Amino acid sequence: WECEGVGGVFHSLDRTGRNLLYETDRVLVRVQDLIPEKADQLIWLRARVHTSRAKGKQCFLVLRQQQFNLQALVAVGDRASKQMVKFAANITKESIVDVEAFVRTVEQKIESCSQQDVELHIERIFVISQAEPRLPLQLEDAVRPDGDGEEEGRATVNQDTKLDNRVIDLRTTTSQAIFRLQSGVCQLFRDTLTEKGFVEIQTPKIISAASEGGANVFTVSYFKTSAYLAQSPQLYKQMCICGDFEKVFCVGPVFRAEDSNTHRHLTEFVGLDIEMAFSYHYHEVIDSITDTMVRIFKGLRDNFQTEIQTVNKQFPSEPFKFLEPTLRLEYTEAVAMLHEAGVEMGDEEDLSTPNEKLLGRLVKEKYDTDFYVLDKYPLAVRPFYTMPDPNNPKYSNSYDMFMRGEEILSGAQRVHDAQLLTDRANHHQIDLEKIKAYIDSFRYGAPPHGGGGIGLERVCMLYLGLHNIRQTSMFPRDPKRLTP
Amino acid sequence: WECEGVGGVFHSLDRTGRNLLYETDRVLVRVQDLIPEKADQLIWLRARVHTSRAKGKQCFLVLRQQQFNLQALVAVGDRASKQMVKFAANITKESIVDVEAFVRTVEQKIESCSQQDVELHIERIFVISQAEPRLPLQLEDAVRPDGDGEEEGRATVNQDTKLDNRVIDLRTTTSQAIFRLQSGVCQLFRDTLTEKGFVEIQTPKIISAASEGGANVFTVSYFKTSAYLAQSPQLYKQMCICGDFEKVFCVGPVFRAEDSNTHRHLTEFVGLDIEMAFSYHYHEVIDSITDTMVRIFKGLRDNFQTEIQTVNKQFPSEPFKFLEPTLRLEYTEAVAMLHEAGVEMGDEEDLSTPNEKLLGRLVKEKYDTDFYVLDKYPLAVRPFYTMPDPNNPKYSNSYDMFMRGEEILSGAQRVHDAQLLTDRANHHQIDLEKIKAYIDSFRYGAPPHGGGGIGLERVCMLYLGLHNIRQTSMFPRDPKRLTP
Repeated sequence: WECEGVGGVFHSLDRTGRNLLYETDRVLVRVQDLIPEKADQLIWLRARVHTSRAKGKQCFLVLRQQQFNLQALVAVGDRASKQMVKFAANITKESIVDVEAFVRTVEQKIESCSQQDVELHIERIFVISQAEPRLPLQLEDAVRPDGDGEEEGRATVNQDTKLDNRVIDLRTTTSQAIFRLQSGVCQLFRDTLTEKGFVEIQTPKIISAASEGGANVFTVSYFKTSAYLAQSPQLYKQMCICGDFEKVFCVGPVFRAEDSNTHRHLTEFVGLDIEMAFSYHYHEVIDSITDTMVRIFKGLRDNFQTEIQTVNKQFPSEPFKFLEPTLRLEYTEAVAMLHEAGVEMGDEEDLSTPNEKLLGRLVKEKYDTDFYVLDKYPLAVRPFYTMPDPNNPKYSNSYDMFMRGEEILSGAQRVHDAQLLTDRANHHQIDLEKIKAYIDSFRYGAPPHGGGGIGLERVCMLYLGLHNIRQTSMFPRDPKRLTP
Repeated sequence: WECEGVGGVFHSLDRTGRNLLYETDRVLVRVQDLIPEKADQLIWLRARVHTSRAKGKQCFLVLRQQQFNLQALVAVGDRASKQMVKFAANITKESIVDVEAFVRTVEQKIESCSQQDVELHIERIFVISQAEPRLPLQLEDAVRPDGDGEEEGRATVNQDTKLDNRVIDLRTTTSQAIFRLQSGVCQLFRDTLTEKGFVEIQTPKIISAASEGGANVFTVSYFKTSAYLAQSPQLYKQMCICGDFEKVFCVGPVFRAEDSNTHRHLTEFVGLDIEMAFSYHYHEVIDSITDTMVRIFKGLRDNFQTEIQTVNKQFPSEPFKFLEPTLRLEYTEAVAMLHEAGVEMGDEEDLSTPNEKLLGRLVKEKYDTDFYVLDKYPLAVRPFYTMPDPNNPKYSNSYDMFMRGEEILSGAQRVHDAQLLTDRANHHQIDLEKIKAYIDSFRYGAPPHGGGGIGLERVCMLYLGLHNIRQTSMFPRDPKRLTP
């Protein structure tokens, strides 16, 4: 593996990276910092070999760091031998190299690189980590827009191949952008709520009883007994409200054992959850949530424009639109809009997925927004713990929120009275024994409260106008995928 | 439930909180804002009835919001009837009430309340949520220091009773302080790393194979197959490094199916995980982690002093000490210190828990710090993916970190070469088939990298000088506890 050369220095490190230990005074530069002002400086750089092309006595490399790349040249001359050019030409794509090189300005812009005005003239090159010669997918294929491949006879990479080789797929500009933006969503969510006085809580994922009856729950072997994976942190958020934390949020995995093989279902996803006591009206809760969503949308628009543009290159979409204040429609209004559009459905019927999407289009046409709240769902289509509308027993103090016509949050005012909760559970024919702990939480004084849970991957998918939730889950889990 | 009165207004709301709807113009004040400057104002307040005591024609209440409380008085006179005093006296402890009251200064400080200079003279009182008359535990018992109870014949509450009734126990000043501080640890951890250019990632908890051989892993029924709960996000963090994210962190649940019934083991805890590529030496990783820990310690010291003092009232402890830069000892030095203290152990033997604690005391005596790093563990006692020390094959580029003599982090430089990783796995007699996906992650170029995982509950426990990890886990899970 070691191969010291003459006429230039070029070799591979041993497997422990031993030689690295002796170079701690070297400063590695970043590709994005290599601009004409750095011309003629001798620098050290660590990067991946994005492409390599030998041409007579020269070898042209494109070196890449994340979304940035530049051209580098090894040419036979004073500092490099034929062997060194050959060595460079043989470095496999995706290998990681350290190079010592002079920064040189170029006469003609290098259109194919992010750094168009400079190139590197390599003096020394070391292979830090060698990639196997055959890659399971090519990065340039993985970022090609769907249509482009077919027309020009070039390959695109299907979703499963990308996911099977996520380690490589994550290196593409599109993946880098998506997951940086996702990281931003989490940060904006937490920062907004922390500023509003919410406390972050950690809720258990292994639970002893499935609170809503046991459907769609994963079972875990727990020593000599069985347990379940939490379908939501709702009970625990509510216990924190009963425990006087007043306003809480949590970010964590949520598990759904649904055999749904759709573009928007995962068996494990990240829930951004909110719960809060309110003073007089559950619309205080809606306002807190919509305010948080708007802060997220603005933060993405203002701080992640590069990422949005990068994703758009591969997956074009319209910019995400929202209103201030957020549009809130009542369920009856939505049904009326659908009726007017020719849809036949009952007043107290739940929205089907196609009707949700159609409603999204109607709302967009009428109000020019991709984000809105649908308030006051029929009581019959909501879970037992949903507070009935005190003024109309057919409806409830509950709401969903939508982005581009797809649901991203479901929430409600919760029943905070043990007796009413018991009555509602009985009405739903739920076994009281199984939800005893839940009901008991409200026996020692509970303030009126409400909340909701947001799906992180859906928010990212819909904000970016993508069409498959596996694109915004780094390591997605669905009924057919458990790896990597 | 409704009971409108004469000579004052006092009643209970219906179970939906219907009446609340009509009061959206009322402003509720906070207990901590009730200071002498507010004297003679008529205010509205929502709070819990902490205690209530009738005395002739008067009823004294203590009203509480989180850690703040104040005295309130209902007295027969112009505005209140006998019935109203009786109604107030009958409100059960922990019920939530809305009161309209005048703020009045008091002549003698009310030592037992947080608001010592004012009291409320109640004009109207409504019960928002009524607590059952018999509480499973008394808040004042739950915060009594261990010794105090016995001496004075007063009750303390044991750990299990507290946990069984967490909804009430969370209301104590101690619990409120602990979990606010815990929220602060998470925020400080993330903010520090985000500032350092780390990207937050979300890693799956349901995994298809147990990467370290299958011991101590919970099994999940996954549709027609079986899966496991992740014992750490390490593989996924490393895949992100191989996927060019360079520096990543994640905060999430970690599952360990160990039948360990100790003061510091949980079957589910929150991992604060870090992974990063480094340039030349794995000490860059140690420095990033210790710098993050120091930022957390400083943030807690500077911003959570009230919480620390509150916990100290019930559980006295010495202030947490740390050095800058963080003390880093080599394993051989630690063994020498233990030998000097009379401990018999081999150079390449792992540290037992008692020896860890003893070492903590020796380090504290010698260096006056409660936080330090132990570097260069014997290779034999570390997992197969640990990078051997290139200069001494008996040791490894790995480290643990300790707070008050107990381990809070385990970490290492990872083997980033697929062939060396295969060799190391063979040496450990690990079935290569089971870790194929893990090894394959390193076949397409991987930078030298390292990281570690921190246990959130341990950091909180040890920072506060507590002695049971169930105190810093809101809903702890251990082999014997799955509820609430």
